[in-house]
Amino acid sequence: MLSDIVENILAGSLRAAARLIRKIDDGAPEATECLKRLYPHSGNAFVIGLTGPPGVGKSTLTDALIEEIRKQGKTVGVLAVDPSSPFSGGAILGDRIRMQRHATDEGVFIRSMATRGEFGGITAATRGAVVVMDVMGKDFVLVETVGVGQDELDIARIADTTIIVLAPGLGDSIQAIKAGILEIGDLFVINKADLNGAEKTEQEIKAMIDMGQSTVLEQDNWIPSVVKTVANRLQGIDLLWSEIDRHRHYFTGNVSPQFLKRKRFNLKLELIEMVKQRLVDSLLKKMDDEGELEQAVEQILEKQTDPYTLSEKILKKLV
Amino acid sequence: MLSDIVENILAGSLRAAARLIRKIDDGAPEATECLKRLYPHSGNAFVIGLTGPPGVGKSTLTDALIEEIRKQGKTVGVLAVDPSSPFSGGAILGDRIRMQRHATDEGVFIRSMATRGEFGGITAATRGAVVVMDVMGKDFVLVETVGVGQDELDIARIADTTIIVLAPGLGDSIQAIKAGILEIGDLFVINKADLNGAEKTEQEIKAMIDMGQSTVLEQDNWIPSVVKTVANRLQGIDLLWSEIDRHRHYFTGNVSPQFLKRKRFNLKLELIEMVKQRLVDSLLKKMDDEGELEQAVEQILEKQTDPYTLSEKILKKLV
Repeated sequence: MLSDIVENILAGSLRAAARLIRKIDDGAPEATECLKRLYPHSGNAFVIGLTGPPGVGKSTLTDALIEEIRKQGKTVGVLAVDPSSPFSGGAILGDRIRMQRHATDEGVFIRSMATRGEFGGITAATRGAVVVMDVMGKDFVLVETVGVGQDELDIARIADTTIIVLAPGLGDSIQAIKAGILEIGDLFVINKADLNGAEKTEQEIKAMIDMGQSTVLEQDNWIPSVVKTVANRLQGIDLLWSEIDRHRHYFTGNVSPQFLKRKRFNLKLELIEMVKQRLVDSLLKKMDDEGELEQAVEQILEKQTDPYTLSEKILKKLV
Repeated sequence: MLSDIVENILAGSLRAAARLIRKIDDGAPEATECLKRLYPHSGNAFVIGLTGPPGVGKSTLTDALIEEIRKQGKTVGVLAVDPSSPFSGGAILGDRIRMQRHATDEGVFIRSMATRGEFGGITAATRGAVVVMDVMGKDFVLVETVGVGQDELDIARIADTTIIVLAPGLGDSIQAIKAGILEIGDLFVINKADLNGAEKTEQEIKAMIDMGQSTVLEQDNWIPSVVKTVANRLQGIDLLWSEIDRHRHYFTGNVSPQFLKRKRFNLKLELIEMVKQRLVDSLLKKMDDEGELEQAVEQILEKQTDPYTLSEKILKKLV
């Protein structure tokens, strides 16, 4: 049964791949077993992450990139991940529907995930789905994160090239971008660049990158580039693609120390997340089974003690 | 030193309170010790949570509620929490500045937190700051969550009354609101109700509430009300306040079973989060100290094994 799924995916079955991705999304335990067997076959796809605040046109850009990749005769898997936000704009649905025009193209495989971390963490679930698309033989995997939380940033981290998508006038100023973004962005895209303020946004991002050069990016020779696009008119997509390509060669061409360093760092984060989630699940389940949490709650309600003292006590018992 | 901070806060020192909240935000260990001592004095403030997607005017609404509370001769602590989003709109800064007009009013104490969970989780940090404002003697504490992730929803859960703020046209339809929201909202506000589509949004929310009545809310007699406001013109604020008041009396008037149930549930969540975060921190630190994670990463890079098998192995060793 398990080996059926694995063999079918390796043999190119879209249905088997779609099923496994759904199992990962649902947090099904057998998904882990499948991934163990698929993992040795993975490592060939180049993973591109897209992230950014709502309304900047990430889906339209993803759509344009699909077209560009197909024009090059390459295949692509697309993963849209929307983990954390309980609110979602109506646009998302529309965008997903638009992307469906690729549905009949065998070189394109699009899936969305709404994972809430059941599968050993959100990043782990996304990585699992990327592994599936990788062993399907896709040349590229695009991971588009729909939300705006830290989770989404972590997901972008599993990418080989991370693209931060922004748009003019977003928050009016550089204040719109917090510190962490700079560190993970390999490329910055200003989409909707036909709107007022594109130049100003570009200058601000460039100034930010310059500032960053002297601090966080010191060890790294890659200077993030800034590309302006109008994705819904396919403007700037060729330039964006050539920048992605340049970054890809920079990192994979001579297996640079930077590339290995990032791979190591990302793998470590991933492992931490997987262990963390499972650890917490198993220990909390144990506590819950023994009614320990309920007792603790009563003690706090009766003001016999406080949550700070109690959580320390529980912790000591666990480790 | 610790007892100084505690005594100063209980004596009404704003500086001491501000300092402790910053310590909580920074994840300083001594903050826990202070909170242990403050906790027995807490439990008098009524906590109101506001959450909702960006752009609906939460800060303006918070500002209007501050004014309403002060009109009643009551005091208020305000906590703006922006934990998870690495992107933030420029509006936030402006709104915070506008709120500063209350800075000279001794009955108002405003703080913002950018906590990333160092203090035993984001909810725990927020609760800690609420405890501080509570023991300061504030009648009400408003917790406004600026982001849109699950974290923010969990934070809203520490409130006695949770208000979900929406605006007309947001995502065009009921699709904008995911299932979890309904379960935690005691009141729904449609702010910017002077914009087109306010009636439609109201109808949709009401329909959703009606639907929910037959399922999740079955055990509860409280039917969430929907209030339309135009916060920047102070329209509808008096009605909103009377609804908050109605909810407050419903839950506290006769210490209803629902109230106790919610308190128990919230406390349990809080404990879980505190234990979880500390557990993970201490175990991961141990693994990191022993170089175990680094070894695991190398093994995966050399394809000797896969992350799925390895994380299970690490987990078994830990528990």
